[in-house]
Amino acid sequence: MGKYVYFFGEHKADKQLLGGKGANLGEMIRIGLPVPPGFTITTEVCRIFMKSNSYPEGLDNEIQENIKKIEEKTGKRFGDEENPLLVSVRSGAPISMPGMMDTILNLGLNDATVKGLAKATNNERFAYDCYRRFIQMFGNVVLGMEHAKFEDILEHFKKQKEVEQDFELDADTLKSIVERYKEIIKKETGKDFPQEPKQQLDLAIEAVFKSWNNKRAITYRRINNIPDDMGTAVNVQAMVFGNLGDDSGTGVGFTRNPATGENVLYGEYLLNAQGEDVVAGIRTPKPIHELKNDIPEAFDELVKVRELLEKHYKDMQDFEFTIEHRKLYLLQTRTGKRTAVAAVKIAVDMVKEGLIDKETAVLRVDPNSLDQLLHKQLDPVAKNEAEVLTKGLPASPGAAVGEVVLTADKAKQLAESGRKVILVRTETSPEDIEGMHVAQGILTARGGMTSHAAVVARGMGKCCITGAGEITVNEKDGYFVVKGIQVNEGDYITLDGTTGEVYKGKLRVVEPELSGAFAELMSWADSFRKLKVKTNADNPHDAAMARKFGAEGIGLCRTEHMFFEKDRIVAMREMILADNLEGRKKALDRLLPMQKEDFKGIFKAMDGLPVIIRLLDPPLHEFLPKDEESIKEVAEEMDIPVTTLKEKVESLHEFNPMLGFRGCRLSIKYPEITEMQVRAILEAAIECQEEGIKAIPQIEVPLVGNVKEFKLVKDIILRVAKEIGAEGKVSYEIGTMIEVPRAAITADEIAQEADFMSFGTNDLTQMGCGFSRDDSGKFLKEYVDKGIYARDPFQAIDREGVGKLMQICVEKARSVKPEIEIGICGEHGGEPSSVEFCHIIGLNDVSCSPYRVPIARLAAAQAAIKHK
Amino acid sequence: MGKYVYFFGEHKADKQLLGGKGANLGEMIRIGLPVPPGFTITTEVCRIFMKSNSYPEGLDNEIQENIKKIEEKTGKRFGDEENPLLVSVRSGAPISMPGMMDTILNLGLNDATVKGLAKATNNERFAYDCYRRFIQMFGNVVLGMEHAKFEDILEHFKKQKEVEQDFELDADTLKSIVERYKEIIKKETGKDFPQEPKQQLDLAIEAVFKSWNNKRAITYRRINNIPDDMGTAVNVQAMVFGNLGDDSGTGVGFTRNPATGENVLYGEYLLNAQGEDVVAGIRTPKPIHELKNDIPEAFDELVKVRELLEKHYKDMQDFEFTIEHRKLYLLQTRTGKRTAVAAVKIAVDMVKEGLIDKETAVLRVDPNSLDQLLHKQLDPVAKNEAEVLTKGLPASPGAAVGEVVLTADKAKQLAESGRKVILVRTETSPEDIEGMHVAQGILTARGGMTSHAAVVARGMGKCCITGAGEITVNEKDGYFVVKGIQVNEGDYITLDGTTGEVYKGKLRVVEPELSGAFAELMSWADSFRKLKVKTNADNPHDAAMARKFGAEGIGLCRTEHMFFEKDRIVAMREMILADNLEGRKKALDRLLPMQKEDFKGIFKAMDGLPVIIRLLDPPLHEFLPKDEESIKEVAEEMDIPVTTLKEKVESLHEFNPMLGFRGCRLSIKYPEITEMQVRAILEAAIECQEEGIKAIPQIEVPLVGNVKEFKLVKDIILRVAKEIGAEGKVSYEIGTMIEVPRAAITADEIAQEADFMSFGTNDLTQMGCGFSRDDSGKFLKEYVDKGIYARDPFQAIDREGVGKLMQICVEKARSVKPEIEIGICGEHGGEPSSVEFCHIIGLNDVSCSPYRVPIARLAAAQAAIKHK
Repeated sequence: MGKYVYFFGEHKADKQLLGGKGANLGEMIRIGLPVPPGFTITTEVCRIFMKSNSYPEGLDNEIQENIKKIEEKTGKRFGDEENPLLVSVRSGAPISMPGMMDTILNLGLNDATVKGLAKATNNERFAYDCYRRFIQMFGNVVLGMEHAKFEDILEHFKKQKEVEQDFELDADTLKSIVERYKEIIKKETGKDFPQEPKQQLDLAIEAVFKSWNNKRAITYRRINNIPDDMGTAVNVQAMVFGNLGDDSGTGVGFTRNPATGENVLYGEYLLNAQGEDVVAGIRTPKPIHELKNDIPEAFDELVKVRELLEKHYKDMQDFEFTIEHRKLYLLQTRTGKRTAVAAVKIAVDMVKEGLIDKETAVLRVDPNSLDQLLHKQLDPVAKNEAEVLTKGLPASPGAAVGEVVLTADKAKQLAESGRKVILVRTETSPEDIEGMHVAQGILTARGGMTSHAAVVARGMGKCCITGAGEITVNEKDGYFVVKGIQVNEGDYITLDGTTGEVYKGKLRVVEPELSGAFAELMSWADSFRKLKVKTNADNPHDAAMARKFGAEGIGLCRTEHMFFEKDRIVAMREMILADNLEGRKKALDRLLPMQKEDFKGIFKAMDGLPVIIRLLDPPLHEFLPKDEESIKEVAEEMDIPVTTLKEKVESLHEFNPMLGFRGCRLSIKYPEITEMQVRAILEAAIECQEEGIKAIPQIEVPLVGNVKEFKLVKDIILRVAKEIGAEGKVSYEIGTMIEVPRAAITADEIAQEADFMSFGTNDLTQMGCGFSRDDSGKFLKEYVDKGIYARDPFQAIDREGVGKLMQICVEKARSVKPEIEIGICGEHGGEPSSVEFCHIIGLNDVSCSPYRVPIARLAAAQAAIKHK
Repeated sequence: MGKYVYFFGEHKADKQLLGGKGANLGEMIRIGLPVPPGFTITTEVCRIFMKSNSYPEGLDNEIQENIKKIEEKTGKRFGDEENPLLVSVRSGAPISMPGMMDTILNLGLNDATVKGLAKATNNERFAYDCYRRFIQMFGNVVLGMEHAKFEDILEHFKKQKEVEQDFELDADTLKSIVERYKEIIKKETGKDFPQEPKQQLDLAIEAVFKSWNNKRAITYRRINNIPDDMGTAVNVQAMVFGNLGDDSGTGVGFTRNPATGENVLYGEYLLNAQGEDVVAGIRTPKPIHELKNDIPEAFDELVKVRELLEKHYKDMQDFEFTIEHRKLYLLQTRTGKRTAVAAVKIAVDMVKEGLIDKETAVLRVDPNSLDQLLHKQLDPVAKNEAEVLTKGLPASPGAAVGEVVLTADKAKQLAESGRKVILVRTETSPEDIEGMHVAQGILTARGGMTSHAAVVARGMGKCCITGAGEITVNEKDGYFVVKGIQVNEGDYITLDGTTGEVYKGKLRVVEPELSGAFAELMSWADSFRKLKVKTNADNPHDAAMARKFGAEGIGLCRTEHMFFEKDRIVAMREMILADNLEGRKKALDRLLPMQKEDFKGIFKAMDGLPVIIRLLDPPLHEFLPKDEESIKEVAEEMDIPVTTLKEKVESLHEFNPMLGFRGCRLSIKYPEITEMQVRAILEAAIECQEEGIKAIPQIEVPLVGNVKEFKLVKDIILRVAKEIGAEGKVSYEIGTMIEVPRAAITADEIAQEADFMSFGTNDLTQMGCGFSRDDSGKFLKEYVDKGIYARDPFQAIDREGVGKLMQICVEKARSVKPEIEIGICGEHGGEPSSVEFCHIIGLNDVSCSPYRVPIARLAAAQAAIKHK
């Protein structure tokens, strides 16, 4: 016969046996923290119960003994009419299943003990409210009654009393409600509400065990691959009350300041109150240091608790406490949430205090939170007072203030005269690039986290909010409307790209401060990481900025963006519209010197570091206007018949542009485009070398699916290199994107020809999972909600699917060329869990937008530490 | 020192050493065929020459000796002015590289020998034309001069003489041309045209060896992975002439009748003529049996040759012969091309004659050619006399005659009154289905081999021509125009779906005859094959027809086509337009009984055979009208505001519908659709069982990419099955399509949950290779031309890429469930090389459209024999 019940702290923290919650409470007691006494019924009991629908022998005795222990420790008695012991009954599985199973509070209350509680708290309203809640929870969870049955009664009384909130009901009304609750229970179940505390407890324990197999829990486990036979533990714990007078209270504490990281006790409390009072927001809590005057012994105890917590958990803790008649109880402690500034400071401080080592410090900071440190932020005080106009998706972090403009042209015009503008559009297109460049921030009504606006803005490190669906833009008349409010061009608005909030007017902005602690932490990170971190940059400005943030090269320079500027897009369109090779070459000849200058600028910014330049990738129709009106406009500009342009637009139309005529397919059909680009790259590199700048170009072929495609394009590149006599003057490499599934599974063939490879995981996800980034919005959210994908696979690499393709690719490529350099570019390269995956499968580098470089550096370090 | 030159027949047929051509000619001689004498310079010489740029010692002696042997055998002498020996010099690599290297004919001619040839042939024009051609070939191939230099001269004389064809030039003109040719050679190369035959020969041999490394040849080898160091052989062979008088001649023979398969000598010839005369088409050849009278000894020799050929090659041979002064020479023999009827008859006859075994017979018939046997054909005589209006793509084979109709409604209207119609449309859409059903054939102006019209017509086994781009359809005014000819509704046209030709008027049609030989061959095939062959069928008619053709079940029943019929599409649209679950359920309730009837009909047709039914797959917008006008129309029909419908159409618009909201994604978001379909399937099956029909439903979930998707849909299916109490009344399976790359690489997870899997290789190709079927037309042809893909991957499975994904899938799935049934449906399932691949990777079955079932059966048998 085993032991099935453990008093808190009596057994080592064994989550499998005691569940997560039981193990934690036990641990707190074992390190000497003042926790209300209680006990855990083990998961083994649950397993036995599920199998045999009965309890093991002796369980009831063990429960009785442990109840007695609680009574001894608290001096209260279960069912005592003067000083009743009340307990909570909670489930606690070895793996957290938030919200999946049930909790019962205030167990032990009945028609007699409620009076004792009223007397002890001197608060009849409170006592009856506890009782009402208990009956309701018990009726729902234990007796299986519909929640609505109770809510209807509650609503009825609220209407009658003409109040809106539960807490506005007085004691007498609550008494009536309690009576009605008992009646409905009798009516529905045919039995009286059990008045005997021991019977209440037995029923509650059984209900918790049974809740392991409720439908919600089963579905949750099915989707999260949690074994059904794991079972849950049950925790029974004494309730303590902070509203037993002015020698009682409740509060929340932090072992350090969670906003700044300062090493002081931090928190707030309310005297003669329960936790709910804080939530209700009727009274304003006091700062914790005032407790020294109110209840000095509790404050002294808190100071000790803080030390115990930090010494044991070696991290900043956030804890809940209750003081019952001057005695401090800790109800819960967990790792405290903190701002990025605080996280960095605490991590670095703790190393200096000898609490943790550098590796631990590096692991302590959430890489994503660094965004906060690198961008402008809204002043939190100003934010709290300002009115939120609407909320969109936080597409690119930071803060921006400026006058509203609705077109890229207007943006440029105003910016040239020194004014600060926010570009607001229904959605952006490549033609808006220049306007986006000069704007402080971008706001769009449509589009997701990976829409054009979002991707480009992140690339620029510019604050951007997308998908603000409540906005309707009226470009013609120069205003936008949101919730009936009209905002005109020229009006000031403020964006918080970190939260997606849009404010009316000018809010105060705080500049980023890369403190000494930040620099120190990053230097530790760099010493641990194995992955190189490069950047995606299409222009010298971004390249230089990324280098400042620690980028070790350019992992992706997209050349198409270069073709959208005013004079270039004209040449580009002439190229597309040309009927023959000669016409195309003429237009390309005009583009050549411009491309060359672009590359020279980038090589200069990246002097001595490698630069991967991707050949033209998008389908040609992206360079042509789409709607009737712009077609007319462009035709006029180009001085060609509208029908000619229209026909070209139609002939280039694609049903699935994602799977269309683009990437290296363009190179193969129109080698002259590739010839021009290669010439521009190599001539730029040679000229740089001659000026003493070390240019290291790596030419990248996009959308390769078949080694023969790569060979053909490689031949073009080699031929041009020969034509311009590149040999001996500059060394360059030729590699490929891996974004087509076929490329990944034939990587052994491709690696024989390619000098390097770089995963385009965005496209690889689209093709590998079979959903387009632009269209999956219709179902992907639902997929994530249902747990089909743990996270949006466009945000974090889908390790089990797309990741498997990547692994296959790496294995195959390395099997023929062990030293081949394999990286990743695109959005995933700056996302911590994806960076970790890249480390695991042995990539050489990740590349991301400039502002994500520090994030990737930290994530890479964490991955290296975790997977030593 | 090795031997570098072999006289024909002197060495066993070693292709590596002698090249393909040399080995073949040698083999012909060794079995006793009368072949003009000659010799082969081995590939080894080529390899030595490439390495050292010189010949091995003794080579020249060997060549001299072998020339002497030719002189002895022919009684002619190299350079002899009376009776000159002329030779051909040809390359011949171990692997055929058609058109990649060069050939020189009539070598040995010079200013003196040309006169001898003129005298011997009594045809001065012929002699000088030979000389002219020789100089031109020599100048181009050996001296490296541009072809155009010679053509310019030729054109000049043709203009001068006012003739159009080369053969219209007289002897004197040709003499002048020869002089001019020699002049231009002198001018361009600085040297005289070499008159000495031995020098001509040496230069020609060197040129052939050098041609191994010309650019064309290198590119060809690079793309086809032929090693560069293989080298080519050179064949030098005596020329023979059939124009030396009425005791000479030339012709083509077949060892059996290539049209019918009849076991008789077949062919035709011309007296006193060269092969070119046949090509020029001036004289009409005589049937071969007349040779018995003209040159009896040659005819007797031919009869012997026929026996030798069939005995040795054990297949029908197509051979070229020349008779020079009553002596028969065979110039070439190869396996003869034949009609499908002949192929089947010859194969079966040869088994009976003991020439070949059954396995060989089964291998002898091209599965694709069976199409000819299964469909109506145009009478070849009628075809020859009729006028071709235009030509499109042969999208679905067969022949059809009928009145032109331009709309599906008109088609139904006329067909109801018993008239035969051809539906002519710009392109078809799902709404045309009923019209296509009643039409004899379908003709569209746009679309490829896998357009809607093509796919549906093949499914129906209906003659169809697509992409007839010269046609412009004017639906409103009831006619179409092609090359200026107007064809009105009601006019008769005839389609040849096997060639893509469209004829004006009614042509005679021949019904298919499934002869005894066909049945016999197919029964042998069935005894060999391992793969089961199923069919893709969406209605009882197709299912029954496929069963007649030998289908062993339905591998794919698409349920979406069922929703396009008149009353159904209305309910379907109401379902899509409903704002809430209730509205959708109401519309689905109306669809339920119709779906059930569909399934009952199919189960009845397939009594006792398994039926895979795929749940709704296409995106919902496919059921809505697209253009402004039809939106208006439908809105009126449905009695809803145009804006409502328009908004819905817009909200469902997708950038990449291929990668959009479809397949199981619909089931997960709208489980009620799946519930209705599953209810219809299972209730239909139960009712069939009750009527004594054995229904074996297999429910298939489309577009699964993640096992969790499959689990969720499976749960819906199991729930519905439980609700209607299916257990014990019908046994069914639940499986999945494998069409998303992610599904293939996580097949181990999916196989744990799925009863069966079926590859949708069309989508798998689109996603795996990253090109959409609808858009890849812009570059895929070029890809195939350039050898990037050996064949269009939508026609034959891309074994190296998509095939690898399939292999990974099969291995992973079988690793967890060895007995899992894996098949393929979609277009590839009826394509022989794809069927072979399915056999190789161990699939259980293939499924294809009804008319391709016999093709798949034969292909499966061939695969089993080849890969025993």
